[in-house]
This record gives sequence, C-alpha cells and structure tokens, in this order.
Amino acid sequence: MTGAPANSGGAVPPGPARPSQLDPDIAARLRRTPDGLVAAVVRQHDSGEVLMVAWMDDEALHRTLTTGRATYWSRSRQEYWVKGATSGHHQFVRSVALDCDGDALLVSVDQVGPACHTGHRTCFFTELPVSHPEVTS
Amino acid sequence: MTGAPANSGGAVPPGPARPSQLDPDIAARLRRTPDGLVAAVVRQHDSGEVLMVAWMDDEALHRTLTTGRATYWSRSRQEYWVKGATSGHHQFVRSVALDCDGDALLVSVDQVGPACHTGHRTCFFTELPVSHPEVTS
Repeated sequence: MTGAPANSGGAVPPGPARPSQLDPDIAARLRRTPDGLVAAVVRQHDSGEVLMVAWMDDEALHRTLTTGRATYWSRSRQEYWVKGATSGHHQFVRSVALDCDGDALLVSVDQVGPACHTGHRTCFFTELPVSHPEVTS
Repeated sequence: MTGAPANSGGAVPPGPARPSQLDPDIAARLRRTPDGLVAAVVRQHDSGEVLMVAWMDDEALHRTLTTGRATYWSRSRQEYWVKGATSGHHQFVRSVALDCDGDALLVSVDQVGPACHTGHRTCFFTELPVSHPEVTS
C-alpha cells in the first residue's frame, strides 16, 4: 500500500517466508503480505505497457536481481518459477524499483512474446464497468 | 500471480474479508491474498506512468467502480481511504481492468499532484541494483 501516511502503531509486518540470500539491507525494507510476498508489477521497459502482476518472496527478488531473469513465487503451486522457462516467453530484466513503503516492486523487462498465459500481450484485458467516472478534462 | 498455468488442485482461495455491495459476478472472479485483498496498480491514464500500488478489498473496488474516485483498503490502519481525501491529491478514475487470474487490478486515473505521500510523482523512486542484467538488444 502506498500513498497514505504510515501508522507506526500497526502490527509487526511478516518476515521472510523462506530462507533467502537477498541483501539484508533490501530485505529489511520489504513489507510483506501475510504469506511473505510483495507484489511485482511488470512493464515493458521501452513502451511502459503494464504486462502483468506476479508475486515475489525474498529469494525470488534475489534471483531476479542477480540473474537478470524475472523469477516469481507461485501462490498456487508454492514454488519458484522463472518466467519463460516453459513457455519461452522470457522476461529479461532491465531495472527494478522498490516503492516508498516496501510492499511493491516495479520490474522493467524486455518481454519476449505475450506476457499472459492466455496468449494476450498483457494480462489486463478484462475491463470492468466504471459506472460514474469523474472526468476532469 | 499471472502468467503461469493455474493449478486447480490448490487450496481454496480466501473469500471477502468484509461485507460488500460489489457485483457478485465480479467478486466471484477475485483471487485474494490471505487477508482478502487484491493488488491495485495505478497508472496515469494518458502517459501510462505507473504511480503506485495500493490494495483493495471487495468493497474498495465497489466504491472505486461506482464513485469514480480511487478507494483503497489501508493495511496499516485497517480502514478505507479515498485517495486525496486528506492530501488533495485526488485520483479520478478513467478505467479499471482485472487481470487474467483475478488477483490484480490496473486502475487508470487522472492523478492530481504527486501520487506518493513523500511528494514524488510516483512511489517507485528507489532503484535496486540488478547485478547481472541480460540485454537482448
């Protein structure tokens, strides 16, 4: 969560869910979900298109930063996965940024082929109805 | 998580954490964290710049879709917050897309002022070191 004032009186955030070689200085900045994850927003590095959101634990982030290949934690399969390892739709990492309160990453990649397992370029292809949009310009 | 094959043999995903008036057809598509949330990636609608990631429960999504004002669930304060209500840095919602497996939203907004409570335009201003980036072009 970002954009709102922090509340230092809140509960202690969850620690790492699994052992990791992640730099302790970076690990100390992460603010994880109850299952030890941060959200990774993935965008195409040059066009800026938002391709997908996946999840990283500490070790997935470590592998992403040190191998240059986007690596995630699968919530459904409870294992690491290197994007493209089975599909060939690799993500070559150009840069990674952490947000102001440590619970989200912005991963800029060079995406080979579609990012989505459905074959769409982006996973965000389902529009929801906004019934009362406010338009300011 | 997106981009990986689903595993239908996984545990039953968490249901809504709080009562909500969200359209049941949309609610049925959400795949929530253990604390009942989905990640909301917020971008500026015209430039495409990724501004922040926040969290929505079912009711925050309902309010976002029906009021046109981006509304989130604060994990630290355990309450709803309408972006800009105290800061004046409003987010007027232009469109909302759900990802292929229902655990992330892409919210396109017209952002007034900085999105980040630090005063930065975007919350993603901290670059992490990528020690072995692979470059494909």
